[in-house]
Amino acid sequence: MHQQEPPSLRTTIKRIPQRGNYERDIIYEILDEGLVCHVGFVTDGQPFVIPTAYGRIDDTLYIHGSPASRMLKSLQQGIDVCVTVTLLDGLVLARSAFHHSMNYRSVVVFGKATLVQDAEQKLVALQAFTEHVIPGRWQEVRSPSRSELAGTLVLSLPLVEASAKVRTGGPIDDEADYQLPVWAGEIPLKLTAATPIPDSRLHTEIKAPTRANA
Amino acid sequence: MHQQEPPSLRTTIKRIPQRGNYERDIIYEILDEGLVCHVGFVTDGQPFVIPTAYGRIDDTLYIHGSPASRMLKSLQQGIDVCVTVTLLDGLVLARSAFHHSMNYRSVVVFGKATLVQDAEQKLVALQAFTEHVIPGRWQEVRSPSRSELAGTLVLSLPLVEASAKVRTGGPIDDEADYQLPVWAGEIPLKLTAATPIPDSRLHTEIKAPTRANA
Repeated sequence: MHQQEPPSLRTTIKRIPQRGNYERDIIYEILDEGLVCHVGFVTDGQPFVIPTAYGRIDDTLYIHGSPASRMLKSLQQGIDVCVTVTLLDGLVLARSAFHHSMNYRSVVVFGKATLVQDAEQKLVALQAFTEHVIPGRWQEVRSPSRSELAGTLVLSLPLVEASAKVRTGGPIDDEADYQLPVWAGEIPLKLTAATPIPDSRLHTEIKAPTRANA
Repeated sequence: MHQQEPPSLRTTIKRIPQRGNYERDIIYEILDEGLVCHVGFVTDGQPFVIPTAYGRIDDTLYIHGSPASRMLKSLQQGIDVCVTVTLLDGLVLARSAFHHSMNYRSVVVFGKATLVQDAEQKLVALQAFTEHVIPGRWQEVRSPSRSELAGTLVLSLPLVEASAKVRTGGPIDDEADYQLPVWAGEIPLKLTAATPIPDSRLHTEIKAPTRANA
């Protein structure tokens, strides 16, 4: 699990370092399974944490939004960001309150976000957003018009200073507590898709797409 | 939906303000349904976004962790934080790539986190963490010992500068796109609990607890 060294000091997992992981494969897997990231940035000394969708192509993470968004206006100036993706995998119930925990997989990325200026690269990034949510969807829907493309800001963040943190398995109780008559174990959690709700103006017999991940 | 005014300038929803909400009830409901928050703070100008569990009692949010945690060491100095909780409710599939969206409920809280010094208040906060995850669990498990209590930092954050943002419903397409033969609608998403996995050293017949929320 620890073949690779952390790529920078701020990326080094300090708390419970055995949960830390700097492998590309693990990082990409978590990013590809997640749907929402939390983008942290600083404006006038004040931290902001904003949830938003994202896409990944190779070792680049893309976020997007309206040119009017406070977040994107700040980020395109090239300020430091921290982007975190968290997948909650389970509740870990111990015999003591103290040892309760959660199973999770998370990725934290540090770096500077840069505005994507090139129209073709922008389109490729938008394709990554759509394909990330529903693989195959990009081919089915109307592509962005020139004005839609102009009305979307895309920012890229290199996946260089990135680390993953993972907890799996059941509780670890104090030895004396194992005799307590308390249920202990894991309640796995999963983001699950329910029956699709067709748009009220949908007049076609086309079947709803399905998601492999959820 | 908009009876209340935003409690501060930085709390005011700027992007798509009609999705903004400053009602206590909505904010509490989202916080009580969520399990993980993302805590944003600044150290030496660098933003950090760390996922962690939390609890709520009335208009106070509590987070906790080891005294060795970088996050908690920073926060107890009374620095500005931004705590965000996001519930992903669905994928919104439009007929154009541009109008794809997500349904979500999120809460953003700004403020200064303060270290909880009082032992009794600390215990009440830890009870809130446990009850938040599994209602009724606190009564069943071994309570924190004095050394466990000493080994846990608890921070409180007042739910004063808090706002919610909510998107519900299906896609809103460009009028011309409604004729396209593309499936459109919402794929609802829900964090769902799977069959509990008993701890390998569980020797009792006690039934696993269930969660109402997941």
